[in-house]
Amino acid sequence: MLTLHDFYRSSASFRVRIALNLKRLRYEQIVHDLDTGAHQQPRYVAINPQGLLPALVAGRQVLSQSLAILEFLEITYPDPPLLPAKPAEQARVRALFQAVAADIHPLTTMRVGHYLKTAFSCDDAAVLRWKQHWLVDGLSAIETMLAADPATGQFCHRDRVSFADIALVPQIVSAQKLGIVIDEFPTVARIVGDCMQLQPFRDAHPDAWTPHLNSN
Amino acid sequence: MLTLHDFYRSSASFRVRIALNLKRLRYEQIVHDLDTGAHQQPRYVAINPQGLLPALVAGRQVLSQSLAILEFLEITYPDPPLLPAKPAEQARVRALFQAVAADIHPLTTMRVGHYLKTAFSCDDAAVLRWKQHWLVDGLSAIETMLAADPATGQFCHRDRVSFADIALVPQIVSAQKLGIVIDEFPTVARIVGDCMQLQPFRDAHPDAWTPHLNSN
Repeated sequence: MLTLHDFYRSSASFRVRIALNLKRLRYEQIVHDLDTGAHQQPRYVAINPQGLLPALVAGRQVLSQSLAILEFLEITYPDPPLLPAKPAEQARVRALFQAVAADIHPLTTMRVGHYLKTAFSCDDAAVLRWKQHWLVDGLSAIETMLAADPATGQFCHRDRVSFADIALVPQIVSAQKLGIVIDEFPTVARIVGDCMQLQPFRDAHPDAWTPHLNSN
Repeated sequence: MLTLHDFYRSSASFRVRIALNLKRLRYEQIVHDLDTGAHQQPRYVAINPQGLLPALVAGRQVLSQSLAILEFLEITYPDPPLLPAKPAEQARVRALFQAVAADIHPLTTMRVGHYLKTAFSCDDAAVLRWKQHWLVDGLSAIETMLAADPATGQFCHRDRVSFADIALVPQIVSAQKLGIVIDEFPTVARIVGDCMQLQPFRDAHPDAWTPHLNSN
């Protein structure tokens, strides 16, 4: 039995929803409304001390951090594989994942925007410029990583969906909401377009959010 | 043959140096001085389009992102293991790694400090407060993750060094340079103290920096 602590707008939770869907795993959702700070209430912090979404409960195990959850799912439910077989190819996929998950996403989160406002008296426009800066910076590097490498195929790595696409799509959905013109990153745009033809990505999208909820 | 694109003060490179030392792997270093922007020169960006350190060259493969490099080393050179055997325990170790590498480190990098100065006219004191905020925030969560879990042992996960310790030690070395009092995080402080008794950690420390260099 799998239970995902989730919220439609959490980009890291979106990654896990895609992976669960690709692996055809059924799961329950427990919803924590980021807008009301439900993820920082004692009830959730007792589950995940970081107070961040997502967390996945698998039997008696509570797993946090989307990458750690994806690696766990990959070992436990290997079909279909979301990593290539060869170690060096896996390294490329994991590097692309981290180029999103470590080098873009942490700089664009709600908590960072909130801190910019409280500590530096930034207004909404300044916070938006901050987020756009790191999105353009990071996506430019990813575009080069993808466009310059013959290992890029229909998807980030050859013609199979991998962890790299699972990181990229939610980041692009967020970026578009923040006014980034994705066509300026043509390889990224093409790959994300192809991913969004796939039902597991569509079903995980925030716009498709209809949780079977056990609201917390 | 392994070649590490490296700089003493790069926290992510420090992680990879620890792993290479723990696995008793010999490697050459190519040094890129972060202070002069050598990592953003065309010669290095042609190797790693992100222009970030580290990169590891293994034969004809160029690997970037410290986590991807660690996972590659773990598969390719499994002895000694730096991940536990059980999937759920691996997930805990990877989550601790990401709690540093995704939730603290990206907010405290040189490039972020630089952007705060240019875009928001922050002075050095404001940049320091920013970094200290995210260090205290992130280390508080990690302290709770470690202190509350019986799986914590001499090291982050039981009594063997793992990816989690490899992320934690360089972050603590940086934090101390930024004025964070580590004794406020007693479990973290104890584990880091024990790690620093081990020669592979000592040899990787910035203070031990004596590269066998092919300066770039």
